[in-house]
Amino acid sequence: MSRATRGEIEEFFAAELPFLESFGLRIESVDDGTGVARFVYDERWTRPYGVINGGTLMALADVATYLALFGRLGIVPLAVTNEMKMNFLRPAIGGDVIAAAELLKVGRRIAYATVDLFMADDPDRLIAHATTSYVLPDEGIG
Amino acid sequence: MSRATRGEIEEFFAAELPFLESFGLRIESVDDGTGVARFVYDERWTRPYGVINGGTLMALADVATYLALFGRLGIVPLAVTNEMKMNFLRPAIGGDVIAAAELLKVGRRIAYATVDLFMADDPDRLIAHATTSYVLPDEGIG
Amino acid sequence: MSRATRGEIEEFFAAELPFLESFGLRIESVDDGTGVARFVYDERWTRPYGVINGGTLMALADVATYLALFGRLGIVPLAVTNEMKMNFLRPAIGGDVIAAAELLKVGRRIAYATVDLFMADDPDRLIAHATTSYVLPDEGIG
Amino acid sequence: MSRATRGEIEEFFAAELPFLESFGLRIESVDDGTGVARFVYDERWTRPYGVINGGTLMALADVATYLALFGRLGIVPLAVTNEMKMNFLRPAIGGDVIAAAELLKVGRRIAYATVDLFMADDPDRLIAHATTSYVLPDEGIG
Repeated sequence: MSRATRGEIEEFFAAELPFLESFGLRIESVDDGTGVARFVYDERWTRPYGVINGGTLMALADVATYLALFGRLGIVPLAVTNEMKMNFLRPAIGGDVIAAAELLKVGRRIAYATVDLFMADDPDRLIAHATTSYVLPDEGIG
Repeated sequence: MSRATRGEIEEFFAAELPFLESFGLRIESVDDGTGVARFVYDERWTRPYGVINGGTLMALADVATYLALFGRLGIVPLAVTNEMKMNFLRPAIGGDVIAAAELLKVGRRIAYATVDLFMADDPDRLIAHATTSYVLPDEGIG
Repeated sequence: MSRATRGEIEEFFAAELPFLESFGLRIESVDDGTGVARFVYDERWTRPYGVINGGTLMALADVATYLALFGRLGIVPLAVTNEMKMNFLRPAIGGDVIAAAELLKVGRRIAYATVDLFMADDPDRLIAHATTSYVLPDEGIG
Repeated sequence: MSRATRGEIEEFFAAELPFLESFGLRIESVDDGTGVARFVYDERWTRPYGVINGGTLMALADVATYLALFGRLGIVPLAVTNEMKMNFLRPAIGGDVIAAAELLKVGRRIAYATVDLFMADDPDRLIAHATTSYVLPDEGIG
């Protein structure tokens, strides 16, 4: 069971992160400690031959991790990304991209997640992989 | 002395990476092994209160690193980002952001750079710091 | 099926990496693209209260990744670690530690792996997590 | 000016981290926000041809960062490494290694540092570079 519903998160994103919509970053699903986000392909944001740039993939991974966090903790607007590392494994070309985040730990101060990124039509072939830690706000998270 | 001039790189970016312009990512300067890029503030791409999102900062750091690489090696379109880690140190709010990249090593296969990010009007206060490695193409780089 | 057997790797480690034995780093298992290594607890290498230091955990993760690589490619002595990031999730205290590496990609030039680290007697509780990329030698790896 | 002297830190290390001595990890210098540590070369801990293993370099970088932290904050035994990424740039062969850490930020919860590693007899040639974030204890650090 998720502590924040998809509807609540969509409302929060629309109010706080309106550029997500402009960039084609969407919620796919949210659950307790997992989150899935989608980049809707739009050639305006790509290089010739439809190659999707790394900054977009990192923004997508960040969104997926917020979904996983909100699904576990409820909406915590003060959680901030401490660091993210992404390894780019294969080119992301010409289609929607999915990022699936999973929390590996939620501590009192730090949450840690991994994110798998793959083309929507080829889930078994990773195009990128990220790990990321978040700093949680003070007020009493489990 | 730089192996690729600012004009050559601008031409390459316009042809190959047209979204850089849409995102407000610009060349500041390029030299042998160093590159400086600017994010021109536009509130369309920010959160309430003008907070600039992490994906934009990572895209900006990537551009700065390409400038540093092209300044050293000439334009190498096949160089690809292997991985980037960014630590977010302070919020980036309400103004242009500068990313200054410096190559610490260029080997036969791998180049490695660090990137300092700061607000254009406050160069002494880091807002983020990145490290990144690139895989170079086969054909004979020094 | 593994391309290098446990016996072959033990021989290679004894000849090339004799300090592994001194540090209590052992092979648990090796298969095609996966490798498991063990740190045999010895209080000489720990802090008071039996806390195992981070350097030891990183060395252990490196060994596990070599096992996974050798299990996929055969023994490739020229493969070198390009970078490793480790996130420390919980203290590692007073017992053997297991590192389980899995290759997520083996390309022509770069291999990428993730490593789960946990106490031998509590496999469900991660103490650390690493990601790492390796540069492969030139001579024709599939 | 440093908040903890070299002597105080040596005492703390001897009591809390006795294995540093066994591994040949020594304090070179400590100041406000910077720390320098040395690995004293000993072929027992190396591979054939005197190559120093990555785990040792990561342990050395960790020590240097603690020096920088203690030099800024005084001895804070509860500071813990959240994550470290190290990029290995050139082989470290046959001699002492120096790690020089510099704090780029000390916040209320997170400190962030970069670490340059080089052979003691060739300070201009980086062999490795690390970035690392630490979680600080609750009790009121500036």
